[in-house]
Amino acid sequence: MMRSDVKHFKCEIDGGIATIALDRPDRKNPLTFDSYAELRDWFRDLHYDDEVKAVVIAPNGGNFSSGGDVHEIIGPLTKMTMKELLRFTRMTGDLVKAMLGCGKPIIAAVDGVCAGAGAIMAMASDIRLATPEAKTAFLFTRVGLAGCDMGACAILPRIIGQSRAAELLYTGRSMSAQEGVDWGFFSREVAADDLLAEAQTLAARIAEGPNFAHMMTKTMLAQEWSMSLEMAIEAEAQAQAICMQGQDFQRAYHAFVAKEKPVFEGD
Amino acid sequence: MMRSDVKHFKCEIDGGIATIALDRPDRKNPLTFDSYAELRDWFRDLHYDDEVKAVVIAPNGGNFSSGGDVHEIIGPLTKMTMKELLRFTRMTGDLVKAMLGCGKPIIAAVDGVCAGAGAIMAMASDIRLATPEAKTAFLFTRVGLAGCDMGACAILPRIIGQSRAAELLYTGRSMSAQEGVDWGFFSREVAADDLLAEAQTLAARIAEGPNFAHMMTKTMLAQEWSMSLEMAIEAEAQAQAICMQGQDFQRAYHAFVAKEKPVFEGD
Amino acid sequence: MMRSDVKHFKCEIDGGIATIALDRPDRKNPLTFDSYAELRDWFRDLHYDDEVKAVVIAPNGGNFSSGGDVHEIIGPLTKMTMKELLRFTRMTGDLVKAMLGCGKPIIAAVDGVCAGAGAIMAMASDIRLATPEAKTAFLFTRVGLAGCDMGACAILPRIIGQSRAAELLYTGRSMSAQEGVDWGFFSREVAADDLLAEAQTLAARIAEGPNFAHMMTKTMLAQEWSMSLEMAIEAEAQAQAICMQGQDFQRAYHAFVAKEKPVFEGD
Repeated sequence: MMRSDVKHFKCEIDGGIATIALDRPDRKNPLTFDSYAELRDWFRDLHYDDEVKAVVIAPNGGNFSSGGDVHEIIGPLTKMTMKELLRFTRMTGDLVKAMLGCGKPIIAAVDGVCAGAGAIMAMASDIRLATPEAKTAFLFTRVGLAGCDMGACAILPRIIGQSRAAELLYTGRSMSAQEGVDWGFFSREVAADDLLAEAQTLAARIAEGPNFAHMMTKTMLAQEWSMSLEMAIEAEAQAQAICMQGQDFQRAYHAFVAKEKPVFEGD
Repeated sequence: MMRSDVKHFKCEIDGGIATIALDRPDRKNPLTFDSYAELRDWFRDLHYDDEVKAVVIAPNGGNFSSGGDVHEIIGPLTKMTMKELLRFTRMTGDLVKAMLGCGKPIIAAVDGVCAGAGAIMAMASDIRLATPEAKTAFLFTRVGLAGCDMGACAILPRIIGQSRAAELLYTGRSMSAQEGVDWGFFSREVAADDLLAEAQTLAARIAEGPNFAHMMTKTMLAQEWSMSLEMAIEAEAQAQAICMQGQDFQRAYHAFVAKEKPVFEGD
Repeated sequence: MMRSDVKHFKCEIDGGIATIALDRPDRKNPLTFDSYAELRDWFRDLHYDDEVKAVVIAPNGGNFSSGGDVHEIIGPLTKMTMKELLRFTRMTGDLVKAMLGCGKPIIAAVDGVCAGAGAIMAMASDIRLATPEAKTAFLFTRVGLAGCDMGACAILPRIIGQSRAAELLYTGRSMSAQEGVDWGFFSREVAADDLLAEAQTLAARIAEGPNFAHMMTKTMLAQEWSMSLEMAIEAEAQAQAICMQGQDFQRAYHAFVAKEKPVFEGD
């Protein structure tokens, strides 16, 4: 059973959907060393879990996340050795790797402030919804750092294009919800009152699908990134052949012949 | 001479433009084992041909293609061994490789249903036009399979962005013509009555250009995919130097000096 | 001190911003062998310079650049050996490499004609603004050449998507300013009278930021291009750890604690 008894963020698992959120709404849900590490471990465990079929990352108190806490993270970082700094930046990178490698589609439901490492968590999700109030800022430059944080220089250009990514990373300015929709970062805008329900409905719809195949889609969307086209096409031939020996493919065919809706079981 | 006496799809060659279409309009033009193989072989032959300068993939009876036939392809696949499945997925991948490697720009003219392997054929073309009625669905998930089919996880994100591609591949939902234009999948919408003529006009306009150079453009658009920027810039220095020794470059220069329109001959 | 005494283009350095422009406005600012080489050398020198923090490439007389001069470049190229041609295409590619490697954000301010190698210089910049009159054409096909010139087949698809890039490169047609904004090539449209000032204001705003970190952002945006996701995340862990040992990170933290605006010094 996938753990929902986490300490440093909220986690509810219901009907195959895990809904998680950072949980310091009075401070717009900053990340801390503890929440980074626990999120990383939770997503790593998720790789081996069959119960959770999709994840929703929810806002809390009208904000998604303000990113690394100034007092609890940035202050200590200014006093660290290079060895300690690299341990930290690798831990944050490991959270993104764990999200990419967990095998389950992740839907980020973004409201209010979505900044720094919070914006990265939205970016590292598979699909994003936003309220009109969502303000997404890759603001590392504002604290004297580079835009290359937790994969942003690799992932953001592939979502919104190289030029828009460069502008956001150099200026640190907020991307509005409307810009995010126009640029393909958000799938659509949703009113704040409906956001969580819509994200969970989308998650449930995806979770009804063939989950083993979804895992393979997620794997290949990440793996083919740096392959040549020839390599990617061969890799997909192998990956899809694996899926064709799965029971969900049989179920879909037999349901079609019987003019019924297939019920997938994820194997 | 490039073959137009094909058995499992329609093919007409006129004025250097090959117009092909799947030909089972009563069933929305599904692909079969035979049409996959014949299309693959036809595009492979095209690599060596000088007569055909551009290809239009046309709809037929108001639909582009419904993809792999449920009865003639999916049924048999559910009974195959892994060796046989991999032979099939490699054959479908080989069709995409042959389209990418044929050396001639391909324009997909999409109307009505454009689903599964049909959507892949549109995606693997160079340029796409659509009627307002075009519904493009990468619906592999609906039949219990993964989105990684025939290169979709590599190619689709590069056309419409990683996030929009992920949403289409996880949900299997149709992309509307308007979404396709907004997202850069389609170059523009064209009324159904004008679609074929517009696609052929665009093909003819491209075919009037320097065809050896177009072949090199097509080659490099695929080859540079996974190169570093340094490698890509060197590769283009070599590729363009080759084109600069071509006769079409001479023709363009002399026409310019003579204040005439250049007539390219493709060498 | 970074040189502003250049011969084959205009260069003014003021307040850490270098504003450069091609300088043959009567002929819409074509490139010549001399200006290619001098621009390449200037951007190479810029890599070692600490005074210039951002670059604006400005139009001149209402046009950005008409690209390689027909009489001074294309004519001589038609008479060259392969060895000489490759020397030329590598020199033009080296200009793009030097722009990508100079370590300073480059803002292209595009007005009027922006064609051929001029369009490439806009493309190889980090951020682009345009007047409504900007006409950007990758018109190599019009002179009998391929679209693979100076990195276009690698860079343009990452800015505007594979399909829009293919259409522009095969047809050689102009992209309008509005298309460029919609497609993510231009950040926004600016009236011609305000263009230079707006570009310089944006450059100044970026130059106020942490310049060592900006250099790292620029480096990683180019380097991660062909990395796997795993490699990119590790590369960013290292790059950001380096920035965290910089003084600008300390300055930002202490300014935040003191509720002041940080003043970055680029180390």
